[in-house]
Amino acid sequence: MTDPAPPDKPLFTPGPLTTSRSVKEAMLRDLGSRDSAFVDTVRQVRDGLLSLAGVSTDDGYEAILVQGAGTFGLEAVISSALPPKKKLLAVINGAYGERIATIAEVHDVEVVKLCFAENTTPEVGEIERLLDEDPTIATVAVVHCETTTGIMNPVHAIGRVVSASGRTFFVDSMSAFGAIDVDVATWGIDFLVSSANKCIEGVPGFSFVICRREALLATKGWGRTVSLDLLAQWKGLEANGQFRFTPPTHAILAFHQALQELNAEGGVEGRSTRYRENHVALVQGMRALGFQEYLPSDVQGPIITSFLYPDHDAFTFEEFYERLNNRGFVIYPGKVTQANCFRIGTIGRLYPDDIGRLLAAIEATLSDMGVR
Amino acid sequence: MTDPAPPDKPLFTPGPLTTSRSVKEAMLRDLGSRDSAFVDTVRQVRDGLLSLAGVSTDDGYEAILVQGAGTFGLEAVISSALPPKKKLLAVINGAYGERIATIAEVHDVEVVKLCFAENTTPEVGEIERLLDEDPTIATVAVVHCETTTGIMNPVHAIGRVVSASGRTFFVDSMSAFGAIDVDVATWGIDFLVSSANKCIEGVPGFSFVICRREALLATKGWGRTVSLDLLAQWKGLEANGQFRFTPPTHAILAFHQALQELNAEGGVEGRSTRYRENHVALVQGMRALGFQEYLPSDVQGPIITSFLYPDHDAFTFEEFYERLNNRGFVIYPGKVTQANCFRIGTIGRLYPDDIGRLLAAIEATLSDMGVR
Repeated sequence: MTDPAPPDKPLFTPGPLTTSRSVKEAMLRDLGSRDSAFVDTVRQVRDGLLSLAGVSTDDGYEAILVQGAGTFGLEAVISSALPPKKKLLAVINGAYGERIATIAEVHDVEVVKLCFAENTTPEVGEIERLLDEDPTIATVAVVHCETTTGIMNPVHAIGRVVSASGRTFFVDSMSAFGAIDVDVATWGIDFLVSSANKCIEGVPGFSFVICRREALLATKGWGRTVSLDLLAQWKGLEANGQFRFTPPTHAILAFHQALQELNAEGGVEGRSTRYRENHVALVQGMRALGFQEYLPSDVQGPIITSFLYPDHDAFTFEEFYERLNNRGFVIYPGKVTQANCFRIGTIGRLYPDDIGRLLAAIEATLSDMGVR
Repeated sequence: MTDPAPPDKPLFTPGPLTTSRSVKEAMLRDLGSRDSAFVDTVRQVRDGLLSLAGVSTDDGYEAILVQGAGTFGLEAVISSALPPKKKLLAVINGAYGERIATIAEVHDVEVVKLCFAENTTPEVGEIERLLDEDPTIATVAVVHCETTTGIMNPVHAIGRVVSASGRTFFVDSMSAFGAIDVDVATWGIDFLVSSANKCIEGVPGFSFVICRREALLATKGWGRTVSLDLLAQWKGLEANGQFRFTPPTHAILAFHQALQELNAEGGVEGRSTRYRENHVALVQGMRALGFQEYLPSDVQGPIITSFLYPDHDAFTFEEFYERLNNRGFVIYPGKVTQANCFRIGTIGRLYPDDIGRLLAAIEATLSDMGVR
């Protein structure tokens, strides 16, 4: 060992996240990408992801790993699985829904945008009406937990109308998968994307796609890139268990360990319980300090919470962020367009005790700033 | 610490490679992507890359990091920096030159392929003639060290005619950069791509592009993707030092350490010396065992070497590979189209002593197999 690493600040963000020491230690190896130990690891990771989604290859589902950030996984689906000359219906109530529309437009897919206020969930009836009206819509995309605000969108209800209409259903479950129950088959999801460094608590480096095999096979000839070609990536993994291009071996070893730790915590249910405890502790503590959430509680998820700036002349977010950072706590700026907010994430290797320490630091910071 | 990691097999491959323990230990941290320590790390990495290329931002050059394997970096350049309605001249003497042409074609770029045998270097006069004849060729692409065989292509000489003709010059220096001297400015290189997990000996997870700023700025409006949009990625890094999408923080921390270790070894010259020593030890030992290289020695580089299968009935590559693997040594299959070869890489954290141990294992394996 060289000098021990300094203690890192806990990250109350939507990622990169705080991960366990053992997840990081799983990276202290160099495995060849053709090595059977690595090929087995990839197979176990793919099976583990399907299991979290409540499906298996026997049910006709596949898990595909794609190098890069979560957006790379989204673009892999959008650039590979949207048919030419058909439209995408993008259901939007935040920046990540907008991003899906933007990516589709860059790939010359015509997009119908159905926009809702950032603090409200999409109206399923509106989606149904548009699908009835416009037979050229082939795919519907929605974000599961809109990280812009932390709102939970009704994926199950939307899936029901999308399935009934025979359209393809694409869900960006980036910040939710692994901590929020997702029943891919029952909810009618054809393509779901998430990332290594969210609720499964791996390190950043790759994203993954869970998809219905028949829907995947139907995309033949639609790929608009090489690196992000989802069908080709799947075929490579199926042929010999290997990536087409050098895989992020270390990030995958970390993820394999992270999946074991997720199971040890009781799977999605156990993780969800801890994140909800974190969220409840955060909201109660922040309210006691005079803060107010941006979202109504009935649509707020346990992943990340947007808080309104306090109405006080002495408060600026930049100073608040910097002072908290100097005390060793990292929070996140807001992304809501119509209100001044900052965000605090409650995912990653964080426990209610960490939330307690954060709240104490926030209280002390407000006092230092002369805010109430 | 949990159980210590088992000793890993040395990787005599073109990547993933064997890296130093200290490079891997640099990943035992979780830094936020907005944290000033991380932003500083990214800045130092970008400056360090320019320095290895013999240029700086003051000279008008930029280094851009792109998540994903090396191919993602290549596709970032191809999909972002090739003008619409102009042709690419792809100089090809192996699979990686072919790959550049394939990626360009997927993005609807018309490609002129200039192909040479896999065991010969491109004829610069032919390139010059094509550039004279066809004014619609805007860009010339060549692979520096063709990993298919290990041949070193004459990038400097090609750069001279490309520059003289006013065309844009794109070099895939994936497996060479960091161990082979590259003078980006003098050689007239506009875009160069390499990867974290080659001669700089980081872990896999991202690639990087070194480019002339004016050539980069000229690409405005040409981007054909979102994730791999090179100009947008650069603008993001310039605006606030941050990636547009979650960066592979751990792989970047490892790379920062790897750059320091490269400098400590004497930079490109020191690393080149070690790799050449590895290569010489390998070739001498393999010849003594009766093997013959595929390439003539005057075009063979020190990165990876293709050896012809021995002419003996008892030899199959599959058995040879498996037996060597069981003895703890990982080599690589061949990729040459016209001859039966396997490959042995001499890059990564490997020393002549490691080559000696590999040679002893090869000798014992041949004996076990009853080959001579």
